[in-house]
Amino acid sequence: MSKKKLNIAIVGLGNIGSYLYKYLITNKNILSKKNNCVLNLIYVSAKNKSKKRNLKINKKNWLRNYLDAAYLKKIDIVVELIGGSDGAAKKLVFASLKNKKHVVTANKALIAKYGDKLAKIAEDNKVNLEFEAAVCGGVPIIRSLKEGLIANKINKVYGIFNGTSNYILSKMDQDNKSFEDVLFNAKKLGYAESNPKSDLNGEDVAAKLKILSSLCFNSFINNNIHIEGIKNINQIDIINANKLGYKIKLLGCSEIIDNKVYQRVHPVLIEKSSYIASIDGVLNAVIVDGKPVGQSVVQGEGAGPEPTTSALVSDISSILRGNIKFPFSISNKERKKLIFKDISNRLFSVYLRLEVLDKPGVLSNITNIFSINKVSIKRLIQNPYRSKKFSSIIIITHKSKNESLKKIISKIQKKNYILKKPRLIRIGAY
Amino acid sequence: MSKKKLNIAIVGLGNIGSYLYKYLITNKNILSKKNNCVLNLIYVSAKNKSKKRNLKINKKNWLRNYLDAAYLKKIDIVVELIGGSDGAAKKLVFASLKNKKHVVTANKALIAKYGDKLAKIAEDNKVNLEFEAAVCGGVPIIRSLKEGLIANKINKVYGIFNGTSNYILSKMDQDNKSFEDVLFNAKKLGYAESNPKSDLNGEDVAAKLKILSSLCFNSFINNNIHIEGIKNINQIDIINANKLGYKIKLLGCSEIIDNKVYQRVHPVLIEKSSYIASIDGVLNAVIVDGKPVGQSVVQGEGAGPEPTTSALVSDISSILRGNIKFPFSISNKERKKLIFKDISNRLFSVYLRLEVLDKPGVLSNITNIFSINKVSIKRLIQNPYRSKKFSSIIIITHKSKNESLKKIISKIQKKNYILKKPRLIRIGAY
Repeated sequence: MSKKKLNIAIVGLGNIGSYLYKYLITNKNILSKKNNCVLNLIYVSAKNKSKKRNLKINKKNWLRNYLDAAYLKKIDIVVELIGGSDGAAKKLVFASLKNKKHVVTANKALIAKYGDKLAKIAEDNKVNLEFEAAVCGGVPIIRSLKEGLIANKINKVYGIFNGTSNYILSKMDQDNKSFEDVLFNAKKLGYAESNPKSDLNGEDVAAKLKILSSLCFNSFINNNIHIEGIKNINQIDIINANKLGYKIKLLGCSEIIDNKVYQRVHPVLIEKSSYIASIDGVLNAVIVDGKPVGQSVVQGEGAGPEPTTSALVSDISSILRGNIKFPFSISNKERKKLIFKDISNRLFSVYLRLEVLDKPGVLSNITNIFSINKVSIKRLIQNPYRSKKFSSIIIITHKSKNESLKKIISKIQKKNYILKKPRLIRIGAY
Repeated sequence: MSKKKLNIAIVGLGNIGSYLYKYLITNKNILSKKNNCVLNLIYVSAKNKSKKRNLKINKKNWLRNYLDAAYLKKIDIVVELIGGSDGAAKKLVFASLKNKKHVVTANKALIAKYGDKLAKIAEDNKVNLEFEAAVCGGVPIIRSLKEGLIANKINKVYGIFNGTSNYILSKMDQDNKSFEDVLFNAKKLGYAESNPKSDLNGEDVAAKLKILSSLCFNSFINNNIHIEGIKNINQIDIINANKLGYKIKLLGCSEIIDNKVYQRVHPVLIEKSSYIASIDGVLNAVIVDGKPVGQSVVQGEGAGPEPTTSALVSDISSILRGNIKFPFSISNKERKKLIFKDISNRLFSVYLRLEVLDKPGVLSNITNIFSINKVSIKRLIQNPYRSKKFSSIIIITHKSKNESLKKIISKIQKKNYILKKPRLIRIGAY
């Protein structure tokens, strides 16, 4: 039997594209064997063709223009590694799907923004749109949700989805260093990008969470989401957390309650002995609660050329095998619109740090504000500073409405005895 | 477009078969939608047709004979839930594949014993042989290895693969109870079968490990394996482990070193702070070291009708989608024969417990035997019993050849001061 042959084009030859190219050249044979389909010719395109990449690329395999990947008849699979939700990446992926090319992408911003539209085009044209590499790199969570856990009705997905922020929080804890020091080192070591804004402000986690929610709940992508990043986490909070038996982690959490979806990204104080607390450094972990499977966990490295290549190749292989699937598990016609609910009425136990002037009446004023807003205090620790003029007050609350907690903060921060913006971190909120 | 239709037969209606039947009846629609293929008629067969099962099964859907599943033209997928490596299960699966039916099975004993032969028949007949449910129930590890991690060269796979033994070890630790007490309760609660022999003697883990090795290393199933179970783990060992900062877990571990395969199943002392120590109760965890992905972990419930149904349905769905794969990732022609190496020359640090008569010269004799065999002692704790006539000696060794450790035990256990068979548990051996 003569085997099927498919031609592939890689558009974008940065760290990931270059690694993937080398991988495919080296492993063409074994991949063709495993998938019973020949991975034939590999075309490439990159912005700066003359840049030194340490790759041996035959001249005839360079595309003249990156959009040729979408238009040339001989190309079957387009791997988009340009990045960014708009511009060239958007143009390429839309055009490729419209021209009945399978698309593999690592672009979470693009999928979070245009995933619904793109999925419809892929479905109409009976081609695959695969994005395993867009969510948690080497963690094969997308395939697990679409295939391994296909039987399940999932009501909750949560976990640690950003390696950079997890690395920073872990290092602040382990090495007793400030946010700025750790970030500086992380950049030097390549664990943080030169502009890590979206890693630190929670946007990266939010994009991944939107994609996961949509896959878990068979729904369209919902852009409503509560986002807090880790920029305001101070070393003192890490130290306090430690004393109280917690670690601080940036979690993404999406769940269905009464047919409404709650999506949120924020730091959480997590009991040291719990599973999530054990996920340190650049690791990612995705936890899914479903029926009938119960709780299912997938864990691995979340970023970098190696894990991302593992994900891209799993997508490419799926296409080689002719494993045609709906991009979001289910036909566009069957996907639901879920109503988003914000967390105002959700109950959280929180850690609150207030930096105050140490003068008579302050504590009584604070506790009074709590009492008026019906939030009861579980624990209060006042640490005076050496100067004795200032002190740091840590308050652990019982479970209270998010709304009430917000009100308390907005009241307190107007007081003249408050020196810095109060810091709130939810406890065990997953 | 009219959709493809496939007919399925479930053979065996025990706990799992009954749960699966109900699941498929209830979720026919959504599965057909997700896989773009109609799951049409569901036939069943069971040993005792008249047994009360609380299932509504139409008379015409009962097969007259279980082997009809293999021979009737209208049946496309056979789900074998009879169990056992031989007898009816074997007959059914061989016959079904020979008749070009896809087969889905939860039968690890069958796959561990006849997997290679069955895979060849499946390949020759271009049908799927799927066995996600045979290894770690709800943990989608088989699919992850064959698809999500397809890009990787794997050199090691290990983890906790048996829920019953893990439950017993966890409970002995948490509740400070004896092996017998915990086992008695586990049977009552349904966490152990009435005859849990293969769970406790390591055979169940061994069968799963053989299957995983074969998938990870693209090799034929290798039946050489070192097996120790948990039957000899005493409460006193759990208490000692705890004092030393460890938990005891039954691990399966398979790895390639110098092109040879090492397969072993035995209890291991594991540092409390490590990830594997956090896997308690009936949970299973599979850890894979591969390139380029790095370390990848999948965790979930290992047994019971619900997780097993999740696995079976993922296999059925894969067939509905036409995702034809080689049963062991790669063609029969490409699978390798790996040479097995036993652990004689491997180095382990071990915990050794000796129950001895407390008389002069005993300790010096023991330490002398260690010295002759060139095993150096890292730590020695002697606990005299109240009577003062006997004492318990705990020895922690530095890394030493397994062979030498075995020699020491065989020497020591012949001595007249030894009261019980010495107990050896390897430390951190993964």
